[in-house]
Amino acid sequence: MALIVQKYGGTSVGTTERIKNVARRVARFHAQGHQLVVVVSAMAGETNRLIALAREIQAHPDPRELDVMVSTGEQVTIALLSMALMDLGLKARSYTGAQVRILTDSAFTKARILRIDEEKIRRDLEGGAVVVVAGFQGVDEEGNITTLGRGGSDTTAVALAAALKADECQIYTDVDGVYTTDPRIVPEARRLKCITFEEMLEMASLGSKVLQIRSVEFAGKYKVRLRVLSSFEEDGEGTLITFEEDEKMEQAIISGIAFNRDEAKITVLNVPDRPGIAYQILGPIADANIDVDMIVQNVGHDGMTDLSFTVHRNEYHKAMKILQEQVAPHIGAAGVTGDDKIAKVSVVGVGMRSHVGIASKMFRTLAEEGINIQMISTSEIKISVVVEDKYMELAVRALHKAFDLDQPRQVV
Amino acid sequence: MALIVQKYGGTSVGTTERIKNVARRVARFHAQGHQLVVVVSAMAGETNRLIALAREIQAHPDPRELDVMVSTGEQVTIALLSMALMDLGLKARSYTGAQVRILTDSAFTKARILRIDEEKIRRDLEGGAVVVVAGFQGVDEEGNITTLGRGGSDTTAVALAAALKADECQIYTDVDGVYTTDPRIVPEARRLKCITFEEMLEMASLGSKVLQIRSVEFAGKYKVRLRVLSSFEEDGEGTLITFEEDEKMEQAIISGIAFNRDEAKITVLNVPDRPGIAYQILGPIADANIDVDMIVQNVGHDGMTDLSFTVHRNEYHKAMKILQEQVAPHIGAAGVTGDDKIAKVSVVGVGMRSHVGIASKMFRTLAEEGINIQMISTSEIKISVVVEDKYMELAVRALHKAFDLDQPRQVV
Repeated sequence: MALIVQKYGGTSVGTTERIKNVARRVARFHAQGHQLVVVVSAMAGETNRLIALAREIQAHPDPRELDVMVSTGEQVTIALLSMALMDLGLKARSYTGAQVRILTDSAFTKARILRIDEEKIRRDLEGGAVVVVAGFQGVDEEGNITTLGRGGSDTTAVALAAALKADECQIYTDVDGVYTTDPRIVPEARRLKCITFEEMLEMASLGSKVLQIRSVEFAGKYKVRLRVLSSFEEDGEGTLITFEEDEKMEQAIISGIAFNRDEAKITVLNVPDRPGIAYQILGPIADANIDVDMIVQNVGHDGMTDLSFTVHRNEYHKAMKILQEQVAPHIGAAGVTGDDKIAKVSVVGVGMRSHVGIASKMFRTLAEEGINIQMISTSEIKISVVVEDKYMELAVRALHKAFDLDQPRQVV
Repeated sequence: MALIVQKYGGTSVGTTERIKNVARRVARFHAQGHQLVVVVSAMAGETNRLIALAREIQAHPDPRELDVMVSTGEQVTIALLSMALMDLGLKARSYTGAQVRILTDSAFTKARILRIDEEKIRRDLEGGAVVVVAGFQGVDEEGNITTLGRGGSDTTAVALAAALKADECQIYTDVDGVYTTDPRIVPEARRLKCITFEEMLEMASLGSKVLQIRSVEFAGKYKVRLRVLSSFEEDGEGTLITFEEDEKMEQAIISGIAFNRDEAKITVLNVPDRPGIAYQILGPIADANIDVDMIVQNVGHDGMTDLSFTVHRNEYHKAMKILQEQVAPHIGAAGVTGDDKIAKVSVVGVGMRSHVGIASKMFRTLAEEGINIQMISTSEIKISVVVEDKYMELAVRALHKAFDLDQPRQVV
């Protein structure tokens, strides 16, 4: 007998028929003797409907009141799923975030979980009931309703799994697991049976949007065994996200190819190569609340160097303006150039730590396809390059093949 | 400066445009220096939409879960109205029933209010904010969400007015007050400037469904000054529902003509005229959860009597069956007859206490129209008759005219 936390997203509970399907799946696990806590999102489309309604009243809805409103989406789903479970003869009980008491800070629309009172849930589980909890929401010290922001239901599930020391946290979604890359670009992309938390973080932040990144960080921090599965498949085993150190499992060199074309690159030319120069350039960017992703500075020559970095494409013009008007004249740079027609492509895998030659294989593969590399940045478990955006799909396909990701994963 | 509790029903907040109108009205009162607590219902149609959704899952939805679901209707409205008030530059703050802490018993879908914690509301009012409270809902000792049943938002408003010792409780609805009778039947029907609680109870229970009857009882018990107004009129003064004893005001003999055709009459013929016989007949009816309205038993003769009563038309067949199969043979009655083609018409007014001749005037009026009276029942402030249902409109019109209700009300 295990204690399992399951989470079903908006698409999985999008209609009453689908809610009944979720109930049947939960009932199968229950019949196997497991204790179940089920976290649900709002029915697909409901959150957007509520936000649109709020915007009919206020162009920028008051955050506290928006949370009061938007939290009703999950509240409806928990009641419907509990009813569906009872209709199958199970005992079930719903809880809103406030009722569980998922205590958060007071940052409306993007609150963070501080603590979970799990006694009521434990008591219900011991009484044989399935506990159904509203995802995405909590309550602050003052009793105000808060929400965790988009995708927060994953975080709710992981946090509950951590608080209850659950054996596994299963995230049901409309994909059946984590893939080596996006199957829409590479039809040969394969589902990974397992992936480490670190790899998952790199994959998620790079655009494979299967799980909300905060929930993955949370799971890693509290050592929650996390599994991504499809709610539309009967017997899939999904992808297990796990700790390299803890579990013996197949381990390949490269786990996947991530990519995005949401960024723009900016280069400040010929700046004096002296201490503090990076701060003088990037400080004003941070002050303007612009997130910077890759940063590359090469060794200088003749006391001068170039500094390049990438920002979100939406903030490209704002960043360029700051640099041209405030920064470049001040530090005596020769100029500022930029390009928003770029894409970032990364190979990700914990295996590369102990393997040489990954970078050279990546660069050779791109060269063979005639793709010029504009920027390079590396971490322990990934290598990212910036290329002209029209080459993105070609680069992803070539790398996917070069690293044999279309073949069953090889143990190192 | 007064403390005013206002309540707006589902039609008054049925669209975002109407919610903005409500906000403008609240803002006008606020600008006059009043403190305001605003109770709102779910947007028109929303509660029915939620119930229909629940029924797609469970034919008879679990009451606890139904309350979790249905209570979201008002939760959306409080957020929207608070936003609309802020958009007009006011301070505003919403509360669900649980957040106020409107403590109720645990009778899901028909809970009763036990206590209201009014400190938070007082603090907000003193801080200059308009407080917006979800009607129709509360929370039990265990923290479960409860609802007060249909129309419960009126009760929430009155209970809040009582707890806060408000100067007035204003119920905004889609009619502009209480009328002498239904204007759809008698075009000359007039709006009453005031009516006593007792009259209002008789009018409400007899079919003038302006206010939920429980809220009127509640207002009477806690001496809450209650006013019914139209949310679609700019400057109406509505109808004040007040205490005869407390306030000097115009007082006519008859305040209105009430009616309904929801009932059926049943007569048990020739029963032994001995103690306990009424209980033997009506006990099994009550045991079957059938509500009885009028009960008439005339003096007996030759040791025998007839007993007649009315029940809701929907329960007519059930009641007849019980009487024919269980009761009549047992007590030795000659038979059971019934008729579901009847209507009840009543004249209501506190003035009749001190006036003779009201009954005879009523009966003469009906006789002049050739309407036969089948049953008569009286109380301190009303006289009700049962007539064939096809005569109902004619009886209402004739009585309305006979008692000069189309003329401005005369002070006694």
